Amino acid sequence: MPIKAFAFDAYGTLFDPGSVARAVDAAFPGHGDFITALWRQKQLEYTWLRSAMGRFADFETVTREALVHAALTVRPALDERIAEALCAAFDRLAPYGEAREALDLLAGRRLAILSNGSDAMLSALLRQAELEAYFPVVIGSTTVGAYKPHPEFYRALTAALDLPPEEIALVSGNGFDLAGAKHFGLRTVRIARLSPEALREATQDGSAIGPATVFSSLRSQMDDLSGGPDETCASLLDLAAIATGMEG
Amino acid sequence: MPIKAFAFDAYGTLFDPGSVARAVDAAFPGHGDFITALWRQKQLEYTWLRSAMGRFADFETVTREALVHAALTVRPALDERIAEALCAAFDRLAPYGEAREALDLLAGRRLAILSNGSDAMLSALLRQAELEAYFPVVIGSTTVGAYKPHPEFYRALTAALDLPPEEIALVSGNGFDLAGAKHFGLRTVRIARLSPEALREATQDGSAIGPATVFSSLRSQMDDLSGGPDETCASLLDLAAIATGMEG
Repeated sequence: MPIKAFAFDAYGTLFDPGSVARAVDAAFPGHGDFITALWRQKQLEYTWLRSAMGRFADFETVTREALVHAALTVRPALDERIAEALCAAFDRLAPYGEAREALDLLAGRRLAILSNGSDAMLSALLRQAELEAYFPVVIGSTTVGAYKPHPEFYRALTAALDLPPEEIALVSGNGFDLAGAKHFGLRTVRIARLSPEALREATQDGSAIGPATVFSSLRSQMDDLSGGPDETCASLLDLAAIATGMEG
Repeated sequence: MPIKAFAFDAYGTLFDPGSVARAVDAAFPGHGDFITALWRQKQLEYTWLRSAMGRFADFETVTREALVHAALTVRPALDERIAEALCAAFDRLAPYGEAREALDLLAGRRLAILSNGSDAMLSALLRQAELEAYFPVVIGSTTVGAYKPHPEFYRALTAALDLPPEEIALVSGNGFDLAGAKHFGLRTVRIARLSPEALREATQDGSAIGPATVFSSLRSQMDDLSGGPDETCASLLDLAAIATGMEG
């Protein structure tokens, strides 16, 4: 089936969750990489656990709970002002460097956002990066009441676009998201920013593996729970060529 | 309500998943801690993701998929014999040193196992450690078709014991398991082997944080998604006193 719309994941696909590292390091000097990795990892864990338990909480709450868990590994308590400042920083994540150019190359296509972010967080994120105009459809977790890879999440996308799943491609850098989308029946395009070879280069000296490399190992490779993605590329800039092929 | 039965989690509560580290280090010299941490972390992730997606696979498959993901971070392919040997080692995990004595101290009580392990894996695990006799009821994921913290998992326990949830205490070292059990309505006893103070001691030098400390940071502390546990202790040996209190 020819693809009629492209839906983008936000965190880890268009926006770099690692771009909070400088703010985190200012709040936790010497522990920037460590707390940044734990924070994002726990944030994801809590979305999966809440989806599995059937105990939804908004993404602001999940993000804050994850930060508290991360902070307590290095300090007895998390200062309220630091928590506020870091959660605000998460609403100002930097887009990946090539994001705007890649979106311009997709001009004329139907684009959407499908993200775990709350509707308010996604609205703030797109506004500060001046990327709202590219996405007439934005689906966050507020509307759905669940998190990826719960099937209801992907169903919300097909309902909003009024298209069958096989006519929509989900673009994501997150292996679990691609697995969930594929399981639901969407087509999938994986943004693979870290090649297996580059990751192995980073892990070669076992005694030098720090938190950032552990995090890359957990998050940057494919999670093959539903078979592989339909397409894979190393950069958002490759999407225009892939899109043309998928529409044909 | 007085507690009438105690159900034990297996991996991380009675049995030490870290006890495969020596076998892992023999297979991946210099990467023992790293691969052991990734393997267990991915194994858990895949249970959560599959529960959230509604795409069950048996725990043997999940364990093998997680090992493959971990191994590919350091090698281009996982040798089939190494995979077999390490999965077999996972069926021979060592019980924590105090497990048998702690179970003897609970003599006369109704005990059960409630674990993500497949029925076959749990049977092998309990047999090799000679702990079968303590547990007339063993509930694994084969029967349930889902993983913790999915509510169906805890429901299977209440059905097998024919008791209401508030008359059963779940004993677990895993924060996500305690959160799921509490959300379902069970009483909960947390085994907290690593105190927050000891963890902070281990993370103090940010530049020296390796895979084992990242793993402890993610897995050893409570996940407060449903409020805290009813009881907390540092060792299985404290259970007898706690049990007496909960039965009163």
